[in-house]
Amino acid sequence: MINQRETARTKYGQKIADATVGRLSRYYRTLKQLESLGVATVSSDELAKRNNVTSAQVRKDFSFFGAFGRRGLGYNVRDLKHNIAHILGLDLEWHLALVGVGNIGRALLNFRQFQEQNFYFTLLLDSDPRKIGTRFNNLEVKNLDHLAEEITKAHVDIVVISVPVEAAQKVADQLVATGIKAILNFAPTSLHVPSDVVVRNENMVIEIEHLSFALAQTERV
Amino acid sequence: MINQRETARTKYGQKIADATVGRLSRYYRTLKQLESLGVATVSSDELAKRNNVTSAQVRKDFSFFGAFGRRGLGYNVRDLKHNIAHILGLDLEWHLALVGVGNIGRALLNFRQFQEQNFYFTLLLDSDPRKIGTRFNNLEVKNLDHLAEEITKAHVDIVVISVPVEAAQKVADQLVATGIKAILNFAPTSLHVPSDVVVRNENMVIEIEHLSFALAQTERV
Repeated sequence: MINQRETARTKYGQKIADATVGRLSRYYRTLKQLESLGVATVSSDELAKRNNVTSAQVRKDFSFFGAFGRRGLGYNVRDLKHNIAHILGLDLEWHLALVGVGNIGRALLNFRQFQEQNFYFTLLLDSDPRKIGTRFNNLEVKNLDHLAEEITKAHVDIVVISVPVEAAQKVADQLVATGIKAILNFAPTSLHVPSDVVVRNENMVIEIEHLSFALAQTERV
Repeated sequence: MINQRETARTKYGQKIADATVGRLSRYYRTLKQLESLGVATVSSDELAKRNNVTSAQVRKDFSFFGAFGRRGLGYNVRDLKHNIAHILGLDLEWHLALVGVGNIGRALLNFRQFQEQNFYFTLLLDSDPRKIGTRFNNLEVKNLDHLAEEITKAHVDIVVISVPVEAAQKVADQLVATGIKAILNFAPTSLHVPSDVVVRNENMVIEIEHLSFALAQTERV
C-alpha cells in the first residue's frame, strides 16, 4: 500500500492511479456480473476481453496492488471482487450530499447503482425557497445558507455539486472550508480547490462535443 | 486538417486528439464566458489559469489546429471561439436520439446546455409499454422495436444510450446496423462497436469510486 500512496502524491503517479482506478471500477463490475452468473474463476484474458483492454494490462493492474491470482489457474471471482472492493473503499459506507436539487440531482437520487455500492445521500441543499423544505426520497431539502452546519450534522464524506455554473466555485470554496475532501462536480466549469481535495468532473457537454468533433471531421473530409 | 485526421486514425493519435478535444471544449466554455463579459482579447496565460493547465499547453493545443493568435497581443476572443466551435462541429446542428427514457434520460432532455450548443433531441425510444406513446418536451416516446425505422425518419446523428446494463449491447448492435457512428453511453458497461463508431462513456459510478478510493486511502493511512 505504501507504494500506491507514494505514487498518488506525485503528479506522474496520480495519473497512473487515475487510469488504474478507473479500470479497477470496470473489473469490479465485470466480477459482480460473473459472480451473479455463478462463475467461480476467471482468466485475465476474459477480464481483458470484457473491458476492451489487453490481458497484460489486467495482470499489470493487479500486480500494482499485489498479485491476487495464480498463474494458469485464473483468479477466484469472489476473492478478487472482495479485494477490489476494499481498494476502492466499497467495503465502507459513504455519505453523500447533493448541492442543487435540479434535474440531474434528482436523477442521481434515484440512481440505484449508488446505493448498491454503499453510497447514500444523507443531505440535500438548495438556495431556491420553493425547494427548501420539500422532500425527495425521504430527505428534506435544506437551506444552502446553512451549508457548513448541515454538512457536519449529516456526516457527509462526498459532495455532488449540481448548481448553475456561476454558483459552483462559491459552493466549492464553502465545502473546502468545512473540510470536505471529495467533490463530484456536474457544473460545466473547472473548480479551483487545494491539492488535498479530490474533484471529479462529470461534463456531459464535453463528452457530446467529442462526438460532434468526430462526426464533423468525417462530414468535412 | 489532414494532420488532425491522420492522427485520429492511429491509436496514438486518437489519444492526443481525445485529450486535446476535451481541452478545446473547456477553452470554448471559457471564451463564451469572457465574450458575455465583453472581454475582447485573452492571453494564453489567462486561458491556462481558468482551465488548470499551463500556458504552454494552451499554445500547443492551438498550434495543433493552426495558430489563431498573435504573439504578445493575445487571442481575439470572438475569433478564437468561432474557430473552436468550427473544429468541434458546434456550427452544425446535431440530432440526438434518447434510447431509454428513465431518470437520467429525462434529466438530459431538460439539459439546457445541449440546446445552447445545437444538440437537439429529435427522437425518444423505450421498450416499456407504459412509456411508449407518452410525451416529454413535445416528443412522443416511440417503440424500441422500430429502432431502425425511427432513427432514419428522425435523421439522428448521435444516440444517447441510457438503458439497463443488460440491454445496452443489443441496442448498440442495432444502432451500428442502422449506420449510427456516434454514441454517448450511460449504461455502466463497455460497448463493443466497429472502429469507425465513436463511443463516449458517462459512468457516474466510476467517477464516484475514484472519490471513495481517494478517501479510503486517506482513512487507512
